[in-house]
Amino acid sequence: MRLLADEGITYPQGYRAAAVHCGIRKKALDLALIVSDRPAVAAGLFTRNRCCAAPVIVARRHLGSKSVRGILVNSGNANAATGAAGIHAAERCLKETARRLGCAPAQLLVASTGIIGVPLPVERIIDALDELVANLSPANGARAAEAIMTTDTFPKQRACSVALRGGTVRLGGIAKGAGMIMPNMATMLAFITCDAQIGRTRWQRILRQAVQLSFNRITVDGDTSTNDCVFGLANGASGVAVDREEEHTLYKALEALCIELAQLIVRDGEGATKFVTVVVEGCRRVREADAIARTVANSPLVKTALTGCNPNWGRVIAAAGRAGVAFDPDRLDVYFNDVLTVKNGCAAGVSKAVLDELFKQKEITIRIVLHEGRASATIWTTDLSHEYVNINVAYS
Amino acid sequence: MRLLADEGITYPQGYRAAAVHCGIRKKALDLALIVSDRPAVAAGLFTRNRCCAAPVIVARRHLGSKSVRGILVNSGNANAATGAAGIHAAERCLKETARRLGCAPAQLLVASTGIIGVPLPVERIIDALDELVANLSPANGARAAEAIMTTDTFPKQRACSVALRGGTVRLGGIAKGAGMIMPNMATMLAFITCDAQIGRTRWQRILRQAVQLSFNRITVDGDTSTNDCVFGLANGASGVAVDREEEHTLYKALEALCIELAQLIVRDGEGATKFVTVVVEGCRRVREADAIARTVANSPLVKTALTGCNPNWGRVIAAAGRAGVAFDPDRLDVYFNDVLTVKNGCAAGVSKAVLDELFKQKEITIRIVLHEGRASATIWTTDLSHEYVNINVAYS
Repeated sequence: MRLLADEGITYPQGYRAAAVHCGIRKKALDLALIVSDRPAVAAGLFTRNRCCAAPVIVARRHLGSKSVRGILVNSGNANAATGAAGIHAAERCLKETARRLGCAPAQLLVASTGIIGVPLPVERIIDALDELVANLSPANGARAAEAIMTTDTFPKQRACSVALRGGTVRLGGIAKGAGMIMPNMATMLAFITCDAQIGRTRWQRILRQAVQLSFNRITVDGDTSTNDCVFGLANGASGVAVDREEEHTLYKALEALCIELAQLIVRDGEGATKFVTVVVEGCRRVREADAIARTVANSPLVKTALTGCNPNWGRVIAAAGRAGVAFDPDRLDVYFNDVLTVKNGCAAGVSKAVLDELFKQKEITIRIVLHEGRASATIWTTDLSHEYVNINVAYS
Repeated sequence: MRLLADEGITYPQGYRAAAVHCGIRKKALDLALIVSDRPAVAAGLFTRNRCCAAPVIVARRHLGSKSVRGILVNSGNANAATGAAGIHAAERCLKETARRLGCAPAQLLVASTGIIGVPLPVERIIDALDELVANLSPANGARAAEAIMTTDTFPKQRACSVALRGGTVRLGGIAKGAGMIMPNMATMLAFITCDAQIGRTRWQRILRQAVQLSFNRITVDGDTSTNDCVFGLANGASGVAVDREEEHTLYKALEALCIELAQLIVRDGEGATKFVTVVVEGCRRVREADAIARTVANSPLVKTALTGCNPNWGRVIAAAGRAGVAFDPDRLDVYFNDVLTVKNGCAAGVSKAVLDELFKQKEITIRIVLHEGRASATIWTTDLSHEYVNINVAYS
């Protein structure tokens, strides 16, 4: 299945999008609307951050609606740590949008990304809604991808077709990365559209599973945001129903789309100079493999070694050892891009020249094998460069 | 109780120390020996890293000895990820040292700090032992503090006296910080000497408690080393026995000494521009307070905000919210140096000018109050500066 790079959320039938500059950010597009022409079933996954933002609270509530018509999203302001006023602000924006679309406010989802703790400039958003709704078009999917960017250096969209027995269905998606605004909160947003006919429960189930193996497998700096969310709409506009047997086919396409968008987020991670895959195998439990992979991926020492093209594998085993997982260090093997570098917990005798060359690669897979069981986990991540610090020490 | 800055491990009676350059590092002192003239009871705490180093394995075993005579420590090589050969190397060094001191090898503890995965240059160490033993003197405590440094920018030693009913006892200590060598593994070592008469079990208990509230409350980059250890010797040379009633008096002095040494490590943390205290109060459980304090202290976004003197309190509440602890975000208060900045989860209305001034301070206390219970925890940490990245991306 081929993913299209120049198509996104309006690739599936029956979707339109629009984006405008409403004045939250200085110049860039900062407000987008994604609309399904017909009622769609909606699924959503949210940040587990206890201090979740107002739009997360509102969108979670609206996901209970039988049908959904669209998603309103702004960049430049997270509407987080804004209390009851923040919730009221999000609801007011949806109410005004719903009136213009001729639907109920509860049929709209909302997302925000940007600075925390600053009141959402509701009037600027409402003043821009007429223009936003007027601009809704299948041609504007890429503009929506642009409007959700913060410190992202490129917009992220992908789409694909899936041939089912009843015909072809389409999937599209946009995402924004673990970036800062002004510079502020790392926030990950992704919106997926689909024109298949599928029930709400099944759509939610396959989206959850796909997110688990894609967006939940990435880390740039370990800082889970207050605003993370992934929404998926399925509007049935293709006229193709997805039966239980074919659900897996649709799922695989959705998974591939989500993995690609997730990896784009990592590639565009703040200050990233490398794309790093951490694979942990041979664990007793998946959650143990996951814990080790995340600890290695988030280790500042491993990350800075990667930035410096420094084949310092000791940092990898030290990070693995502090992940809170019981294992026998004398059976630990570590591969860098398939070169066995640590065997039974000791140097495997790879020459410095070979290691130096390995660590110069832009894409590095660190594979850690514990020989304790059969569970495994993969995490995609970046390094920790001067540029990451540059971006995040700056105030405005 | 006053801590002396120009005294260290040879301040208590009956201890001598020596340090030499044996050739593991290029120029600096890299081998030290601390000896008690009489048999001492020994206590030790070790890294919980699964991939612990050979000296950790050997020292843990020797701590079972009824009495201990000394500690051999090298910098420049961690003797970690070196397998059975590493254990044999550590044992050989101790055997040769014991022969020269006229004690059993099991009466010596061993510690190493430096690069991981490189065989310990045993011959260089053994060749230096005659000179090392010849130099043993009560005057050389400061040289030992110097010999355990890696990327530390200053040696760390403190000492104090404690008046008990039976007379005065003394405590001394040295420590090295979370630095890299060549540049490699963050390693924290600390050695405490005492001339009180105290039983091994009680000495171990009060040392464990003091470490829990000092060295275990600091983090520079969250990367627990393979080699961390704290050893404490109590040799009774003062002739003053510590009875059960006075144990607490000795404990408080030991705790103060350990806290001071731990804070020195943080102040000398790699690239540190700030000394940061994170206090979390009002939790249901201490481990919950601890989890939040550590998550905030290790958050790259909080750390870079501190480096940039950027009063971005949103990053603090976002980090608190992702610590895996259940709490009501609408009751969360956050103070920076006693200024209430976040009240009930929202901005408390402190002016930007006041916040900017606060964040310029070199010492910042972040106090997070949850109002869920009465448990609290404190963590001391640093920021994340360009210099941290500089130090850790470099290869050699």
